[in-house]
Amino acid sequence: MSDASSLKVFLNPRSIAVIGASRTPGKIGYEVVKNLINYGYKGKIYPVNPNATEVLGLKAYPSVLSIPDEVDVAVVTVPAQLVPQVIEESGRKGVKVAVVITAGFSEVGNVELEEKIVKIARSYGMRILGPNIFGYVYTPANINATFGPTEVVKGGIGFITQSGALGIALMGWTILHEIGLSAIFSMGNMADIDVVEVSELLAEDPYTKVVAIYLEGIKPGKGREFIERMSKVTQKKPVVVIKAGVSERGAKAVASHTGSLAGADALYEAAFKQAGIIRARTLLELFNIARGFALQPVPKGENTVIITNGGGAGVLATDTAELNGVKLLEPSQELMDKFRQTMPWFGSPKNPVDLTGQAVVDNYIKALKVAVEAPEIDNIVIIYCRTAVLDPMELAKAIVEFYKENNVTKTTVVSMIGGADVEQAIKHLNRNSIPAYPTPEEAVFVLSRMLMYKRYLERIKKAS
Amino acid sequence: MSDASSLKVFLNPRSIAVIGASRTPGKIGYEVVKNLINYGYKGKIYPVNPNATEVLGLKAYPSVLSIPDEVDVAVVTVPAQLVPQVIEESGRKGVKVAVVITAGFSEVGNVELEEKIVKIARSYGMRILGPNIFGYVYTPANINATFGPTEVVKGGIGFITQSGALGIALMGWTILHEIGLSAIFSMGNMADIDVVEVSELLAEDPYTKVVAIYLEGIKPGKGREFIERMSKVTQKKPVVVIKAGVSERGAKAVASHTGSLAGADALYEAAFKQAGIIRARTLLELFNIARGFALQPVPKGENTVIITNGGGAGVLATDTAELNGVKLLEPSQELMDKFRQTMPWFGSPKNPVDLTGQAVVDNYIKALKVAVEAPEIDNIVIIYCRTAVLDPMELAKAIVEFYKENNVTKTTVVSMIGGADVEQAIKHLNRNSIPAYPTPEEAVFVLSRMLMYKRYLERIKKAS
Repeated sequence: MSDASSLKVFLNPRSIAVIGASRTPGKIGYEVVKNLINYGYKGKIYPVNPNATEVLGLKAYPSVLSIPDEVDVAVVTVPAQLVPQVIEESGRKGVKVAVVITAGFSEVGNVELEEKIVKIARSYGMRILGPNIFGYVYTPANINATFGPTEVVKGGIGFITQSGALGIALMGWTILHEIGLSAIFSMGNMADIDVVEVSELLAEDPYTKVVAIYLEGIKPGKGREFIERMSKVTQKKPVVVIKAGVSERGAKAVASHTGSLAGADALYEAAFKQAGIIRARTLLELFNIARGFALQPVPKGENTVIITNGGGAGVLATDTAELNGVKLLEPSQELMDKFRQTMPWFGSPKNPVDLTGQAVVDNYIKALKVAVEAPEIDNIVIIYCRTAVLDPMELAKAIVEFYKENNVTKTTVVSMIGGADVEQAIKHLNRNSIPAYPTPEEAVFVLSRMLMYKRYLERIKKAS
Repeated sequence: MSDASSLKVFLNPRSIAVIGASRTPGKIGYEVVKNLINYGYKGKIYPVNPNATEVLGLKAYPSVLSIPDEVDVAVVTVPAQLVPQVIEESGRKGVKVAVVITAGFSEVGNVELEEKIVKIARSYGMRILGPNIFGYVYTPANINATFGPTEVVKGGIGFITQSGALGIALMGWTILHEIGLSAIFSMGNMADIDVVEVSELLAEDPYTKVVAIYLEGIKPGKGREFIERMSKVTQKKPVVVIKAGVSERGAKAVASHTGSLAGADALYEAAFKQAGIIRARTLLELFNIARGFALQPVPKGENTVIITNGGGAGVLATDTAELNGVKLLEPSQELMDKFRQTMPWFGSPKNPVDLTGQAVVDNYIKALKVAVEAPEIDNIVIIYCRTAVLDPMELAKAIVEFYKENNVTKTTVVSMIGGADVEQAIKHLNRNSIPAYPTPEEAVFVLSRMLMYKRYLERIKKAS
């Protein structure tokens, strides 16, 4: 591992060559060029294919050496046995990083071939991402150098995945749910560049607000280094990790999948804790938590208030809060008096603040105003159950407007429960930097993980 | 509490009167009549409104007494102070159950008024659902006697909710996600009919495959009875419960919300265990688990096999299995040889069976055939990560066809990970009795709860 500066070229390459570019739709070498073009990359794209003069309307070159320009990034999709030659030529050309999509290396026992390409690359000071990956994405520069879906949603999550198939499937999933990403890095066999280095790179990237990692394992003997270096990453950005292979059999499956040292879950747990990494237990948690960090500031304090129009949903939120260390403020009489004025007579000004099922936009905004103005409140959980008297999109728009107009910086999560129109309202909130979820448990759980990170930052500040 | 036979009229009423029927859209008395008509109830609908001769095209009557027919169910939406008179008249009329939607009773301190209507009803042998509810639904008879969304999706889940706002919001949510329901009962203040009685009713209903309950609490002194009677329900049907108010503060919120005895979470935990009730920890879990029971048979054995096209997703499934007591079969050499023939050379015939990212429909169906024919396999987990080589809907259709043609009765859950087209494929599977989920963790978790129920049934069989 070396420092991340040699990887900065991933974020602003002047040119990308696709070695193995194809004219045949469905082929990886076609899809990568297509995604680069259609996602709007503004740098130069150089297809390399000895049997074509043109690919997708772009002039093609017989080899990377024949490109009459500097090449920063080379995406490699040629068959495995041709990769050493391609790496050699890329090195000679002065390519800075090679994104080796090609499979058929250590993951199928071809350790020697993998070592060979790394050795060649190193002799030229060139770095390798992969092999056995689906490519990488960096949305601020409109780079989609993958054979996955095209229209990656822009946002603040830098996603690093040690699984290709899962990663590419999750690309589609993030598009469906409008989960905004700054970057996606498929790690594959990690013959050279590893998860820590990419984390370091993204920690320096101003567009990345949080690093989300699907991790299968770290290499034997690298535990200490992992903790030390990731500790520095988490001082700059929150890192959320789902560690696969936590069970005995899961660890075995990991070993056969990527050859990483999995297992010893307790060791990982300790390492994550020491490094200030937030752990997710499921894919859903991973992206839920990451979305919270991407859209909202880190909490400034512990005191949280829940504002709801449904008693039951408020109870579920309360349960989740208490079970996950979210401190619900015990409101003063003065504060309760203020909340009381925002609701019908049969509402409750305690915490959860229950505006009742008769609540309309006005009740919510008045209650939010009280919450935002109360200096003792740090974090706000807004809950809405679909009712006939309050259209969800109307509420979502009013919340967004209120937060923008008042420059609210109190950490806020929302849950809206209901059908198709509620789903649209949730999307509206997410598009406007307010993380919203379909169940109260998810919203409060996300806040609990954001509070964990706040406490971690405070601990290391005290220690330093 | 009395036995459930007096409640059977909920499932096949010959006529439903809506007392407080309104001609004004948005009013509860309008929405209930509209839902009854639009959801296709075939019995007689009698709007009662002294100031109208017609409501939504139906002849209206000045009082329930003036209806020239027997009335089985009366839905009551008049203001609280008028409810005693309406209950009195309904009793005289011979109404069997009154669904009292009207709020303003014990939940706002009006205990006396609530006791009064129960007393009147009992004097006529009439039962009361509510008050303070959103109504009830029974889909096999096309009854939607609520002011919630109309188009409830038909299916096998009988949903009982002690929270109105949450329940009505979840109605919309089930429609969005095509979660099929047999019934919805809003319980409200439970002045008369309670959660246990409705569970007993649904246990006898052939269309209900599983009872899903949002429970805030049971009444003081009713714990023993709850266990005894629910034990009988769970011998007939699986029951899944989310218990709200498990935290100290959540319990307080419940107390102010419905006045139930919440808290003492450990007591509930013990009671649920004794009664064979499956516990869900979140709303998402509640409906995920219920969907599994609604669509698939109870597992016949413990041995489970995972079939996947993505190593990473297989690892996550394996982790979830081991952490939740799902026994993954250790395949014999013979079985591995058979699986080996269903996949590319670099796949894995161990469990998880990894068909690799190159898998197409043929690989999945061949592997499923091996799994279905192997007598040592009881349960099947199918996982699919979106790949370019395999269209999700094509796979979903092939799986459905295979299961139908071969009358497969091995308990099966599916996870499909990806974007919009994967979401459609998931819906296709769910519509065809194969529960499918967007993440591997959810699918395996559901199976783990179905296995818990299997073990419970075996335990009570042994004990008897």
